Amino acid sequence: MKRASRQSIRIALAQINPTVGDLRGNADKVVAWIDKARRQAADLVVFPELCVTGYPPEDLLLKPRFVADNIAALKRIAVAARPTAVGAAREIVVGAARPTAAGAARDTAAVIGFVDKKADRIFNAAALVAAGRVKGIYHKAYLPNYGVFDEVRYFAAGEAFPVYGIGRTAFGVNICEDIWHLDGPAGIQAFRGARFIVNINASPYHIGKGLLREKILRRQARDNKIPVVYVNCVGGQDELVFDGQSFVVDEKGRVIARAKAFEEELLIVDLEVAASAKRPKTTLQAALQGAPQGTSQEKAGRRKSSVAPRLEEDAEVYAALVTGLRDYLAKNGFKKVVLGLSGGIDSSLVAAVASDAIGAQNVVGVAMPSVYSSQGSADDAMTLAVNLGIDFLTIPIQGIFDQYLKDFKEAFAGRQADVTEENLQARIRGNILMALSNKFGYLALNTGNKSEVSCGYCTLYGDMAGGFGVLKDVPKTLVYRLCGYKNRRDGRLTVPKSVFDKAPSAELRPGQKDADTLPPYEFLDRVLKLYVEQDKSFAQITGKGLAPDAVRRVIRMVDANEYKRRQAPPGIKITPRAFGKDRRMPITNRYRV
Amino acid sequence: MKRASRQSIRIALAQINPTVGDLRGNADKVVAWIDKARRQAADLVVFPELCVTGYPPEDLLLKPRFVADNIAALKRIAVAARPTAVGAAREIVVGAARPTAAGAARDTAAVIGFVDKKADRIFNAAALVAAGRVKGIYHKAYLPNYGVFDEVRYFAAGEAFPVYGIGRTAFGVNICEDIWHLDGPAGIQAFRGARFIVNINASPYHIGKGLLREKILRRQARDNKIPVVYVNCVGGQDELVFDGQSFVVDEKGRVIARAKAFEEELLIVDLEVAASAKRPKTTLQAALQGAPQGTSQEKAGRRKSSVAPRLEEDAEVYAALVTGLRDYLAKNGFKKVVLGLSGGIDSSLVAAVASDAIGAQNVVGVAMPSVYSSQGSADDAMTLAVNLGIDFLTIPIQGIFDQYLKDFKEAFAGRQADVTEENLQARIRGNILMALSNKFGYLALNTGNKSEVSCGYCTLYGDMAGGFGVLKDVPKTLVYRLCGYKNRRDGRLTVPKSVFDKAPSAELRPGQKDADTLPPYEFLDRVLKLYVEQDKSFAQITGKGLAPDAVRRVIRMVDANEYKRRQAPPGIKITPRAFGKDRRMPITNRYRV
Repeated sequence: MKRASRQSIRIALAQINPTVGDLRGNADKVVAWIDKARRQAADLVVFPELCVTGYPPEDLLLKPRFVADNIAALKRIAVAARPTAVGAAREIVVGAARPTAAGAARDTAAVIGFVDKKADRIFNAAALVAAGRVKGIYHKAYLPNYGVFDEVRYFAAGEAFPVYGIGRTAFGVNICEDIWHLDGPAGIQAFRGARFIVNINASPYHIGKGLLREKILRRQARDNKIPVVYVNCVGGQDELVFDGQSFVVDEKGRVIARAKAFEEELLIVDLEVAASAKRPKTTLQAALQGAPQGTSQEKAGRRKSSVAPRLEEDAEVYAALVTGLRDYLAKNGFKKVVLGLSGGIDSSLVAAVASDAIGAQNVVGVAMPSVYSSQGSADDAMTLAVNLGIDFLTIPIQGIFDQYLKDFKEAFAGRQADVTEENLQARIRGNILMALSNKFGYLALNTGNKSEVSCGYCTLYGDMAGGFGVLKDVPKTLVYRLCGYKNRRDGRLTVPKSVFDKAPSAELRPGQKDADTLPPYEFLDRVLKLYVEQDKSFAQITGKGLAPDAVRRVIRMVDANEYKRRQAPPGIKITPRAFGKDRRMPITNRYRV
Repeated sequence: MKRASRQSIRIALAQINPTVGDLRGNADKVVAWIDKARRQAADLVVFPELCVTGYPPEDLLLKPRFVADNIAALKRIAVAARPTAVGAAREIVVGAARPTAAGAARDTAAVIGFVDKKADRIFNAAALVAAGRVKGIYHKAYLPNYGVFDEVRYFAAGEAFPVYGIGRTAFGVNICEDIWHLDGPAGIQAFRGARFIVNINASPYHIGKGLLREKILRRQARDNKIPVVYVNCVGGQDELVFDGQSFVVDEKGRVIARAKAFEEELLIVDLEVAASAKRPKTTLQAALQGAPQGTSQEKAGRRKSSVAPRLEEDAEVYAALVTGLRDYLAKNGFKKVVLGLSGGIDSSLVAAVASDAIGAQNVVGVAMPSVYSSQGSADDAMTLAVNLGIDFLTIPIQGIFDQYLKDFKEAFAGRQADVTEENLQARIRGNILMALSNKFGYLALNTGNKSEVSCGYCTLYGDMAGGFGVLKDVPKTLVYRLCGYKNRRDGRLTVPKSVFDKAPSAELRPGQKDADTLPPYEFLDRVLKLYVEQDKSFAQITGKGLAPDAVRRVIRMVDANEYKRRQAPPGIKITPRAFGKDRRMPITNRYRV
């Protein structure tokens, strides 16, 4: 292949944070970032999947008006992003300027995720926008309909795999799941002459997902001998958090650029690719407008791409929680949060995450002691609040609890105290948090972890109350690790040592310990991972040497408490399978191991 | 066509009530009902879709062990249902006996819905069972993935449309959604010589669904000139209730048999059909075992099928609520329920439905008055309880409420009373019901109606508490109608007249009326139907002459309260679109009209 037949194409990966339903806000952001990419002299700027609507728009997609508004938003983007529309005199970033041979202004084409409509069908689509117009539209072919995904509920599958041209170089565009299939669109597009592939995504985070994506994409790149540009969004959306980590692999499967995790970023990559033998039918004229063909390898200002390092696992999960919480609050209009501080490890972690997400000055911790609360717990709650610098408030529950008992005297006559009275205390605490939430407009944070929520070791409307469950998908053993990470990062014992050391307890009756009801958390979390996340059978789980009686008891607890989880607040998915729309179990279910 | 080439085939429609996950119980029931059908001398007995697993099994289907157990259950059914297995000497029901020409015992083949597995794919399947063996398996081709359905999440689609033989008559089997497609399996099977079609279902109820089904099926029958046997299940499963109403249409599209709504029934139909020109490849030998071919039209005991009358709308909805509640309780092991009785129309209806579902002796009504409760409301609650004959209990909330206010004094210093104090009262009531639930093992019933739940005119963990939302999908205007129906049916004012007459109020502050916050319910329910159930846009709704400001306000309330609905208890779907898995809206959503 002759050297002269290669082109250097500057691609900007626009790793943005859209908001579901915010068609105007998302469109404005896309226009602004096209402009940013243009100032970096990018030939092509690539936005995430469905960035016009935000992802996932869920049943908004069933509203014809919403789909029409999203198409109108795309058209507005195309027009507003024309170079003339944003001002003819461009401020060019120093070092990014790339005068062409002719010295003419180059323009930036864009790939933008939106919802397309043809007759009565809608498509998860990518628009190719250049010179103020939509030049081409690609329809996603592989529609995920597993896990948290319901795309077959909404979309028809695309069946065409065209290539587009940027100057004399052909490239293929496809969407998310499309690239996970080794016999999918990328191979067809490569066969049709594409010199690189652009793959746009809204790929939700779980632990290790970034590595998995790179593994798949590296294989695609090697198999098809073609570079792949992978663009993901960032930010939280209800149960999901998107981690970004957009990247580029070259034709040998090497990662040559990577954007940061959980942060917006415009990642610039100069991709040197062979010009196509034949000019593609649909060419984004604007991209090399005024530039002589085949000379782009002579451009000045070629840059080395940045490769953000991977986060280690605890840092990654912690960042996911911070992002998920911060965006749930910001996108739903909350400025402050309130949570119960028991002095335990769960509420300590939630307070820490909240402080990192929105600032300690916006976090209110409430101690709600009863006669069963230990002095140690009270001290730990206070110490944590001081260490974090959050507001701290104490409202004892004993007076209210006593009044309930008095008013139940007749109804409960002749009955022993039991879990009823324990739940009642938890519900009084839930009510206090909700009252503070109602009075001051704070969002009440739920502090239940995945181990508890799995086993139903929690009280409906009590410690299960709250608008958002920060730790809903975080197993207890990981809660400890994340508090350890927080302390390491802070370089001090923000979470007091005694919080780690004491035995977990709900403190709802004298001397109560979690271990009275639950197996040790190391054991529990191992069983839960196998049963909840991996659908392993009883025989498969005990086959790993785990005690059958304890395993059966855990499985029974998980199965019996689906009704509680159905009324749990949403929380951030960080594992391969979270509760919520990721796991859809019937409540009425007589299947038993 | 020669008269001698016709056969009379006796088909039993087994309209049963399976339970999700109860593989053993469902299998036992299927075996027992095959035996019942045999005693009625049926040639073929037809069971509903997925009757081995119950419908919908949801993510149980992701457990390989569950699928394996369901296949084992099917095999046990086949073996256990052999005539020899259930006793050689058959008791034949008088009038149903049909001695064959040769006088030999005839046997009964069965069509049974189960989950099939081939390699790593699973199918929504129908097994054809005869003589103790599975003779054929059909895979559902059209997988619904809209509304409450997620079948693409689990199943691969069938691609084969065989016909089977019963004696010399060919017939086709297909499943639910398959028959809704006019160019679907039924036409292919008719083309391949089927003389009748068997269509098995687990078709959830909504108002008017029965009529819709018959309309579609009558068209299928006419278009393909072929009788269709439609079998549906009955019973409640979480949010869904199955109404049965199984039926048979003849080749001219006339309904010639119909089973009752919401009740188990073995409906016997003698179908006279032409024998096929050519013997089908797969024949359920057992069906006409020992009987000479082609002589069945001479059989004695031919019966006229029964055609159950349709229920009028209010009766149908009321029966749906009774069934949905009764089964939620029975299938989850609850014997008694508790609910708050405010003296309002909603709690009156729930108490009536509960009494009809499980008997008044198993219903506990609790009045929880505050200083804002009117004497009229207290009287109405008491009168209703007496009329129904349910237990009645009064627990005032004022002492507890005062204690909360006292303990909040410092935290709320300088703040006016607002919705916080209203919610607090509602939450105290929620806690009282949950405490009674915990102490006595009652299920707490939620009494919120669809109009309130739509607008968020309800308190999380307060009046939204409870294990099951009986009226969650019942608009307020329909609540009134159903109470009227109950009184008409009882022939007396079970629900007191004053309950109908007084203005609806939450009674959480002095003189409060629903009308202070909400538009009139007639207006509200009209807007909600258009917006929630039909996805109409603001312009379309106001285009019907509805006041724009009020419409906008309603839409804003609906949109803003998704977070509350996410934590609502499950409730019975009775409209074309219920809240729950039928409507999947993001909480974080900036789309505004």
